[in-house]
Amino acid sequence: MNRICLVAAVLAASAAGLASAQQGPKPESEIRYRQSVMNVTGRAMGPMGAMAQGKAPFNAALAQKNSALVETMLGLPWNSFGPGTEKGAPTKAALKVWKETDKFRQSAEAAQKAAAGLVAAAKTGEEGKFKAAFGELGKACSSCHDDFQLKQFRD
Amino acid sequence: MNRICLVAAVLAASAAGLASAQQGPKPESEIRYRQSVMNVTGRAMGPMGAMAQGKAPFNAALAQKNSALVETMLGLPWNSFGPGTEKGAPTKAALKVWKETDKFRQSAEAAQKAAAGLVAAAKTGEEGKFKAAFGELGKACSSCHDDFQLKQFRD
Repeated sequence: MNRICLVAAVLAASAAGLASAQQGPKPESEIRYRQSVMNVTGRAMGPMGAMAQGKAPFNAALAQKNSALVETMLGLPWNSFGPGTEKGAPTKAALKVWKETDKFRQSAEAAQKAAAGLVAAAKTGEEGKFKAAFGELGKACSSCHDDFQLKQFRD
Repeated sequence: MNRICLVAAVLAASAAGLASAQQGPKPESEIRYRQSVMNVTGRAMGPMGAMAQGKAPFNAALAQKNSALVETMLGLPWNSFGPGTEKGAPTKAALKVWKETDKFRQSAEAAQKAAAGLVAAAKTGEEGKFKAAFGELGKACSSCHDDFQLKQFRD
């Protein structure tokens, strides 16, 4: 394959699930993307949670790496909760997301702010600051999940 | 909830799918994680592919942001192709991944190197360098997918 074909092949793979440039991504694709981002976020949170709970020794480099990843991830999913993406695949997103959009946006912003705080705390290399900032992020995550995430998948 | 409870709740959510600290994540969880990472990667590739193909105007800031995201993502999934994760959920990963581990690792490293090259090219802000580096990354992605990714999901 020449370069153009390769690029086209990659694009085609990337665009799988996109209805068209005009229509935007399909709801199913948006739901899957949201879940993917949250899955990667959860994986990055795990080892930090262990450190915050004292179940694993504090590792500043790991805290810095994973907090940066969480901050990056929390910048991604919100546009994929747009109108028309309430259903299309099994999802735990409560319909409240689309009914109380201002509150949802505020919760999302609070989580992003807390993630930025954790990045800053991790950069200091101080365990106490890391634990406090992780607690704040945990609070923001839990608050948003309590309000906007169902316990079970719905269609 | 106090802070410890919140952290515990976040941890519990993050750890969903983890069999135990000793056993490591369940195969199903590993497969889902790999797919999540690749899904986020594909989304980041899409707009860069459009720019590389001339279907969208070159946007240096977007190129920088998305190439950095792709580089971050391509650092994540490889440990989740470990022994015992060949099956457990529908996957497109070919069994060759576990039979030709050296070749798979080399392909993964080539993709990571190409992603780093794209990050560097994007930072120059020069469209030509971006397009060339994107072509190299496309080549690395396609090569690995051709060798190690099935066309259809298998159980």
